[in-house]
Amino acid sequence: MNAEIIAVGSELLLGQIVNTNARFISRQLADMGINVFYHTVVGDNPARLEAVIKIAESRSQLIIFTGGLGPTKDDLTKETIARHLQKNLVTDEEALRSIEQYFERTNRVMTDNNRKQALILEDSQVLKNDHGMAPGMVLSTKNHTYMLLPGPPKEMEPMFLKYGNAVLLGKAASQKVIASRVLRFFGIGESLLETELEDLIEAQTNPTIAPLASDGECSIRLTASAASFDVAQLLLDEMEEKVLARAGEFFYGYDETSLMKELTKTLKDKGLTIACAESLTGGMFQQELTSYPGAGAILKGGVVCYTNTAKTDVLQVSKETIDKHGAVSRACAGELAENAANIFESDLGISFTGVAGPDESEGKPVGTVYIGISVKGTPAVVEKMQFGGGREANRIRAVKYGCHLLLKLLANSQSA
Amino acid sequence: MNAEIIAVGSELLLGQIVNTNARFISRQLADMGINVFYHTVVGDNPARLEAVIKIAESRSQLIIFTGGLGPTKDDLTKETIARHLQKNLVTDEEALRSIEQYFERTNRVMTDNNRKQALILEDSQVLKNDHGMAPGMVLSTKNHTYMLLPGPPKEMEPMFLKYGNAVLLGKAASQKVIASRVLRFFGIGESLLETELEDLIEAQTNPTIAPLASDGECSIRLTASAASFDVAQLLLDEMEEKVLARAGEFFYGYDETSLMKELTKTLKDKGLTIACAESLTGGMFQQELTSYPGAGAILKGGVVCYTNTAKTDVLQVSKETIDKHGAVSRACAGELAENAANIFESDLGISFTGVAGPDESEGKPVGTVYIGISVKGTPAVVEKMQFGGGREANRIRAVKYGCHLLLKLLANSQSA
Repeated sequence: MNAEIIAVGSELLLGQIVNTNARFISRQLADMGINVFYHTVVGDNPARLEAVIKIAESRSQLIIFTGGLGPTKDDLTKETIARHLQKNLVTDEEALRSIEQYFERTNRVMTDNNRKQALILEDSQVLKNDHGMAPGMVLSTKNHTYMLLPGPPKEMEPMFLKYGNAVLLGKAASQKVIASRVLRFFGIGESLLETELEDLIEAQTNPTIAPLASDGECSIRLTASAASFDVAQLLLDEMEEKVLARAGEFFYGYDETSLMKELTKTLKDKGLTIACAESLTGGMFQQELTSYPGAGAILKGGVVCYTNTAKTDVLQVSKETIDKHGAVSRACAGELAENAANIFESDLGISFTGVAGPDESEGKPVGTVYIGISVKGTPAVVEKMQFGGGREANRIRAVKYGCHLLLKLLANSQSA
Repeated sequence: MNAEIIAVGSELLLGQIVNTNARFISRQLADMGINVFYHTVVGDNPARLEAVIKIAESRSQLIIFTGGLGPTKDDLTKETIARHLQKNLVTDEEALRSIEQYFERTNRVMTDNNRKQALILEDSQVLKNDHGMAPGMVLSTKNHTYMLLPGPPKEMEPMFLKYGNAVLLGKAASQKVIASRVLRFFGIGESLLETELEDLIEAQTNPTIAPLASDGECSIRLTASAASFDVAQLLLDEMEEKVLARAGEFFYGYDETSLMKELTKTLKDKGLTIACAESLTGGMFQQELTSYPGAGAILKGGVVCYTNTAKTDVLQVSKETIDKHGAVSRACAGELAENAANIFESDLGISFTGVAGPDESEGKPVGTVYIGISVKGTPAVVEKMQFGGGREANRIRAVKYGCHLLLKLLANSQSA
């Protein structure tokens, strides 16, 4: 089964947004062993959209559309497909109810064009939208399968994972099983990691090995194909063992995890609480931590101490420390971490202070970062780092290093 | 002149990377008044690439390729185009010299496949690569212009800006000027906004009006074409006036701005400082505020008060308030905002408390949000909201509402 992904939306052709949907779906299809041979982007224009559909039908069996399911007049994906396939659009009662409920729940006025979102292609199978209003749908004809998904990634991605996937897996059942596994690394650069694994990468056949770098992290995607899921997993296990024998000390997790996710899991498992003092990072560490449900059991609280007054008055850093060493200093980071843990009565305290940029501060260059970690009742450990990125990259990297340092500390305390 | 952008590379179809090149080039072409009607992605396969070229020739005059100019066997863009157009590939001596110099400079061994990178289509104009080895090129035939650019954005983007742009501007010189402007709205849904503007949208010709919704905001992109920049701007001004007459109360800014950006600008202009108490949002408001340089002059600090203890002990919310009304309450939000302003000695205080989800809390449903705003020394104003999204959407929306409420308050205080 060959697939083509058609994104509908003039905002893509105007360069207002990037087509991340095509990437997301391609990756999912690759995992299912479905070949994607084309991506197409076309604007909100019914004639050009229909022409593109005809081309797609001539070369692909599975055609996945994203976008154009919204309430406005320029949303015309399902209308154009309906006309092209001579299908009616019918109201899906469940989708209509869920749209009505959404408006009731949020006390907003429902307009007529919202009703349009509950229309689906007759004979199609509805894909529920748990994060928005427009339902997706799948229609199979003799030669083609058409899948229509909403444009916003926040709606499309969960819909695809929860409902779309299953429909396609049924259709792809006769294919070989493709399994993949992502190994995540922190603290090693992509080229160094690639050098460590050079002979494995050179000799790769099955599983394949694809290194990828992003946001200061590296990952390795292993993809194996086999007659059964179990055999594919075995192939992945073998290759993973070889990779980790070379670079295991930098490995921190699998697949869609993140350093913060690993940290929250570890803290939860050990029943430990944490408090934060964020200068440089301005709340970024805590906002990421609290993006996971259940953060309330881990995070006792924290202070965003962007000014020196906040550091001395609220977090009780001694004025002498700031006068003598500055706010961006080992001493200040240490006191911040210790005092945060004391004030919020937590097991651990972490602090971030540094120079995010664009200007240097206290005579210290952009990218200077101190991270303090305190285990309640003991003096803090402080790490100094020098980053080379821009303001936002430096802040993101600091948060990742903070997670990394805590994970290392907690791993060591376990083995002790 | 209509354009199509063809990205060549199997890594795109496997979902390993996102096609940011198409976005970059689209934006540049839009500014030049060149219409982009299609993006296509095709793999490293000569037969499929040639089929895609034929389709593009049938519908576009300008065809821009990215990728497939590298040294390896699967880089075949120029080879396929040469065969398709029956052109020879000839060595460009200047490109060859610069590749040789690159290898001398980096003390690396030049292999034969690197020599391949200096081959260009005969009769084409070379686009120098200042950041890599493969040169780009432009070839014009009777009916089409073919532009070949390298795949890595770090090479492609500067090449396009420095050399590609100029070539196309010459070709587009006979075209009209296209100018566009984005109007940003908050507090009104996309369908309601479109209903307000229905007759304008129905009657649109020049400027065109394109509504777009994302992350709980709406925007309207106005695009005008005219003989000169000034006339295009006049057309935009006229349409903007009509749009704002209908929906002006929800308008907050132009183009690439954001609610937080507008807020920091307003606070800076008025010389006001702020402090925050973030329960629901866990630091998100402050981390966004501090993403802008100069936040230190605005944000005195804040507390992430994820637990009730943090609310009572650090932010001094009375225990009676929490016992009687709960942490998610009008009374708690008010005290949090007032106390944050007092503790950090700021002009304004803002607080966020609510139920992010996935589970309800204190018998209050997911999406219940209270935002408190206090002007130092006066009782806080608290707004209650009921959101309908998931955990992360509710947090993001709360931060935006917080900015929106502050902006309204500051606008009113100005006119008072």
